[in-house]
Amino acid sequence: MKRTHFTDRELDFLTRMRVGRLATADAAGQPHVVPVVFATDGRNIYTPLDEKPKRVQPRELKRVRNLFENPKVAFIVDHYEEEWTQLSWLLVRGTGTLVENGEAHVTGVRLLQKKYAQYEKMSLKDRPLIVIAPSDVTSWKPLQE
Amino acid sequence: MKRTHFTDRELDFLTRMRVGRLATADAAGQPHVVPVVFATDGRNIYTPLDEKPKRVQPRELKRVRNLFENPKVAFIVDHYEEEWTQLSWLLVRGTGTLVENGEAHVTGVRLLQKKYAQYEKMSLKDRPLIVIAPSDVTSWKPLQE
Repeated sequence: MKRTHFTDRELDFLTRMRVGRLATADAAGQPHVVPVVFATDGRNIYTPLDEKPKRVQPRELKRVRNLFENPKVAFIVDHYEEEWTQLSWLLVRGTGTLVENGEAHVTGVRLLQKKYAQYEKMSLKDRPLIVIAPSDVTSWKPLQE
Repeated sequence: MKRTHFTDRELDFLTRMRVGRLATADAAGQPHVVPVVFATDGRNIYTPLDEKPKRVQPRELKRVRNLFENPKVAFIVDHYEEEWTQLSWLLVRGTGTLVENGEAHVTGVRLLQKKYAQYEKMSLKDRPLIVIAPSDVTSWKPLQE
């Protein structure tokens, strides 16, 4: 039985963690993975396309080209410690959709601006977001003190 | 022109960083991504299969089943900071091979034991490793002080 919602512990983990990694794959099955900032409204994950560090158009980014070929994604948020009994992670498998406007875009921008003070100086309004809709959520010890 | 070797800066980054994330995809193109410890001999990346945290046989792990269906992988090592100008990452795309013995296994076990003191108490000898052979290496500011 696949779970599509987050538990309270998982939501707390997602709220506190600052970086995740988003995996996509092209039509030929070649995976791609990038570090991303993210926010959640409790149901979906929102991650912005940055112009930086690469000076490429958002739609030319490999992760975006992959999404158009194959919307399936995997997203991991994990906490590493040298004491390996304290490792924790949350894995979301689902589908990714590029949004450039509309309700989902407004929601994502608001959540990202609230979570990351860095966006006070960088407008997200004109940047596409990827919205990840979970189809399978799994985790290992997502609570940290 | 795709690059398959690491620069000195990239090697230094790989040597100092303690955790990476390995992305695989199944035959249907569904990506999967997990945090992994890793070591390099300067050419390939070696990452062990842990029995823990899940009590599953190594060959039943999703990443291993994916490799048997589709050997293409992506592996990212990145450094996150709140000062986003200081972000850095190294992305390896290539192929992953499960090794359970032989020269590559001996090399990988030796490198992992040297890098992670945690393996002093945990034998790697009977654990399969995934060997990642790079076919495309890219990075962004892989040097940190």
